[in-house]
Amino acid sequence: MSKFFTDRLSALIPYTPGEQPKDMQYIKLNTNESPFNPSAAVAEAVATEAGKLQLYSDPENTAVRTALAKHYGFDVNQVIVSNGSDEVLNFAFMAFADEKSPLIFPEITYGFYPVFAELNCIPYTQIPLRDDFSIDVEDYIGKNKTIIIANPNAPTGMVLSIADIEQIVKSNPDNVVIIDEAYVDFGADSALSLVDKYDNLLVVQTFSKSRSLAGARLGFAIGNKDLIADLNTIKYSTNPYNVNRMTDMAGAAAIKDNQYYADNCQTIIANREWTTARLIDLGFEVLPSKANFVFAKSDKIGGEELYLRLKEQGILVRHFTKDTIKEYNRITIGTKSQMQALIDTIISILGE
Amino acid sequence: MSKFFTDRLSALIPYTPGEQPKDMQYIKLNTNESPFNPSAAVAEAVATEAGKLQLYSDPENTAVRTALAKHYGFDVNQVIVSNGSDEVLNFAFMAFADEKSPLIFPEITYGFYPVFAELNCIPYTQIPLRDDFSIDVEDYIGKNKTIIIANPNAPTGMVLSIADIEQIVKSNPDNVVIIDEAYVDFGADSALSLVDKYDNLLVVQTFSKSRSLAGARLGFAIGNKDLIADLNTIKYSTNPYNVNRMTDMAGAAAIKDNQYYADNCQTIIANREWTTARLIDLGFEVLPSKANFVFAKSDKIGGEELYLRLKEQGILVRHFTKDTIKEYNRITIGTKSQMQALIDTIISILGE
Repeated sequence: MSKFFTDRLSALIPYTPGEQPKDMQYIKLNTNESPFNPSAAVAEAVATEAGKLQLYSDPENTAVRTALAKHYGFDVNQVIVSNGSDEVLNFAFMAFADEKSPLIFPEITYGFYPVFAELNCIPYTQIPLRDDFSIDVEDYIGKNKTIIIANPNAPTGMVLSIADIEQIVKSNPDNVVIIDEAYVDFGADSALSLVDKYDNLLVVQTFSKSRSLAGARLGFAIGNKDLIADLNTIKYSTNPYNVNRMTDMAGAAAIKDNQYYADNCQTIIANREWTTARLIDLGFEVLPSKANFVFAKSDKIGGEELYLRLKEQGILVRHFTKDTIKEYNRITIGTKSQMQALIDTIISILGE
Repeated sequence: MSKFFTDRLSALIPYTPGEQPKDMQYIKLNTNESPFNPSAAVAEAVATEAGKLQLYSDPENTAVRTALAKHYGFDVNQVIVSNGSDEVLNFAFMAFADEKSPLIFPEITYGFYPVFAELNCIPYTQIPLRDDFSIDVEDYIGKNKTIIIANPNAPTGMVLSIADIEQIVKSNPDNVVIIDEAYVDFGADSALSLVDKYDNLLVVQTFSKSRSLAGARLGFAIGNKDLIADLNTIKYSTNPYNVNRMTDMAGAAAIKDNQYYADNCQTIIANREWTTARLIDLGFEVLPSKANFVFAKSDKIGGEELYLRLKEQGILVRHFTKDTIKEYNRITIGTKSQMQALIDTIISILGE
């Protein structure tokens, strides 16, 4: 740290992304990426843009916003895109939470939420989950607080029903409720169906998981047009050209190839169910996941030990050190052969 | 605006980027883009990455940071890259300015500086330029303030010498001095030569102008490694994957093709000198520019009128409404034929 760093920010503890080791090739089941390439139309769109990179991107990102609006049935003014969903999550924290509207969110959830809150000096309370890692909806009813809930939640993969989400949104009419649906395409119901009914609901999604574009960085939020206007005020006060040309067009192409990605999601879901059954056969406890990962622990081996042993064998999973979840590992669902390799390796580790 | 927008941010007046009209094809001389395509190696690098977009980008951006460090002769830990230079400028404002270290910068300069200051609640003072639009170095000597200076300045194109910059950096040892060198490759001297001598100097550059990558979004900062560590704390607290895969590799490829871009800069400089001479022939006053644009006015036609008449004729230039500069237009330097078209069109407008 330099002596010039402001007092306020020098206390920040940044988010730690999943490791991206360069020492060898791993079966990468640690950052919830898709095992499937983007569709051919994405590569074509990118190649076309590569020859025009001397020109700024469209600050309105008309191509991908129009495609999203049409696909999900909204007006284009209800859509904003961002440099990964992290960026629009940060914008939403900035826009809709402060000392007058403090934040609440689950104690076990996406680890970036407390970082965004600290960064923006927003008071926040982390609400414990139930013992079975489920969210108790009652904890969020009529709280007069800004609320963010990941649905499915991470790293548990567990979901709230749309009826539960609606209760939360309806009972906090003076605050924005942000539903982070990064993993929604793997079997959960989307709160997008509630957007036109409630002016305080913001739904955030990403192209990083179900649409195979983690490396292109593209997220989006859909909500009432006034909420989106506020987020645009922040975008135009930080980085008007936040989404580059290639990603803008890659996103639009991916929306048009929707069937390809929907089929991939079905494959992931099938592989998740297969993996869950195999892990249960091996004596693991596996939380009921609707995401592209499972969260699992075994009485036969500690969470950290399993993580380290798998890494030695060339398989990366994500281990968190927080006390309440340190016996678990979050395992991304990849191809069938990757999951077979995982199960075989676990059998060999447990059998030693 | 929604009723949920925080009081603090609802007063923000965002930056207005240069217009990107979609109604027709213009000769675009309004956003200081390069008229030259990126090099072939850039397109190849992008195509290679397009097939791997399902995987997150390298959060450390090793490829482009290593290329930059080698090219400019620094350690890789002295380099950070960002989603356009706007992002790292915002990070630097956040990191190094606050109520204890308020900001000063020229009154006429890049219009984003006051927006970043407002966004981050940083007190700031805008220092008037001299009557000839030059920066008076004395205004920045020994001020005990965080300082940002664009060199060359925008929209004037005028430069400070490295000796002047050094005086400013040396006389404010308890504050960071940020030199924004977006346009440095068109004839100014870079303050990078001072980085290893002063721990309070941060130099910001961009791939958007001289390296034909405006649409890929890539900026960087070079400074003492502790300053860069502070900027990384903010990066990892907002968006660890801030630069996508394609841009990371496009940037690395562009650095390796340095001669191509250096030659393009020489062409732009020659076209700038040609355009300046023609404009002076036509009775314009043209500020002495070392950037890829000129700032010019004529007694024969008002600034706004010239801007509007050129737009009617299919040529876009940038007009600012601020009182002290409203008689000027900022004209990006393009190809020789684009500049010939500009001059011909001005002659026809003035001759009517």
